[in-house]
Amino acid sequence: VIHLSRLKPIHLQPIGFVERLSSAERDFTAISKVVLKDSLTDALLGIEEFSHIFIIFWLHEMQIREDVSWIHPSSSDNQHRVGFLATRAPRRPNPIGLTLVELVKHENNVLWVKGLDALDGTPVIDIKPYPDWNNGECQVIVDYKIPDWLKQLLDSS
Amino acid sequence: VIHLSRLKPIHLQPIGFVERLSSAERDFTAISKVVLKDSLTDALLGIEEFSHIFIIFWLHEMQIREDVSWIHPSSSDNQHRVGFLATRAPRRPNPIGLTLVELVKHENNVLWVKGLDALDGTPVIDIKPYPDWNNGECQVIVDYKIPDWLKQLLDSS
Repeated sequence: VIHLSRLKPIHLQPIGFVERLSSAERDFTAISKVVLKDSLTDALLGIEEFSHIFIIFWLHEMQIREDVSWIHPSSSDNQHRVGFLATRAPRRPNPIGLTLVELVKHENNVLWVKGLDALDGTPVIDIKPYPDWNNGECQVIVDYKIPDWLKQLLDSS
Repeated sequence: VIHLSRLKPIHLQPIGFVERLSSAERDFTAISKVVLKDSLTDALLGIEEFSHIFIIFWLHEMQIREDVSWIHPSSSDNQHRVGFLATRAPRRPNPIGLTLVELVKHENNVLWVKGLDALDGTPVIDIKPYPDWNNGECQVIVDYKIPDWLKQLLDSS
């Protein structure tokens, strides 16, 4: 209770933005550019030695909302409810996007990446190398469990 | 250029905070609690069906800084420079943390997770299921490339 009352608003600055190269706005398998501020050029030094990176971005067309709750993941089962934080829906308390992309090219303050599901002009707030590591090992979890609704969704697509 | 001039500050609200259960502040293999606001209890419905989740948090003891640039990843080579965005250092333009954790238990607005490298009281800003998925498949990259400096770091630890 003490902690919760201390949760103050957070202010941050975009570090750059997404520039989509494909004319198909929703073709997220295409190459996108991530253009950072000139002042952050040196902060990207050597990033091209990673084949994959996480892009963390701000879904600027969504709003911050406290009233998010749950959805029915299956259109055929209106009893089953799944909370928004257990989905990747853009409607979430803070509209933050997290996507693992292939890093195709790096030149100065610009990255070319493949597989970024962000619209043209999306503000980027952080970039992190993949995978994470600790205790002397890269952390790639291959032994994981997902819900039945997600298995069904994947099977049907 | 047009886009960069439009990059406005972003304001967001913490959705909860980290409560460390271990007395050893830096033992990040221990179990931590992630306590969300009561109003977000429904947003967690069914999350326990995932074995692993991403926690996105705000490194509240760090500052936003535009002057981040590079480090020497190896103490024995003062010629080699790596940009902060190509590392997981907490000193980065926006001090955002991203950690993949094991979800041990879920009860109402509280998650018990294993492997969270966040200090007691750290604000949490988003939670996402692992792994990501698209085109009918879970996305787990096992064929990746990392820099030589990271291989050496992992080998020596």
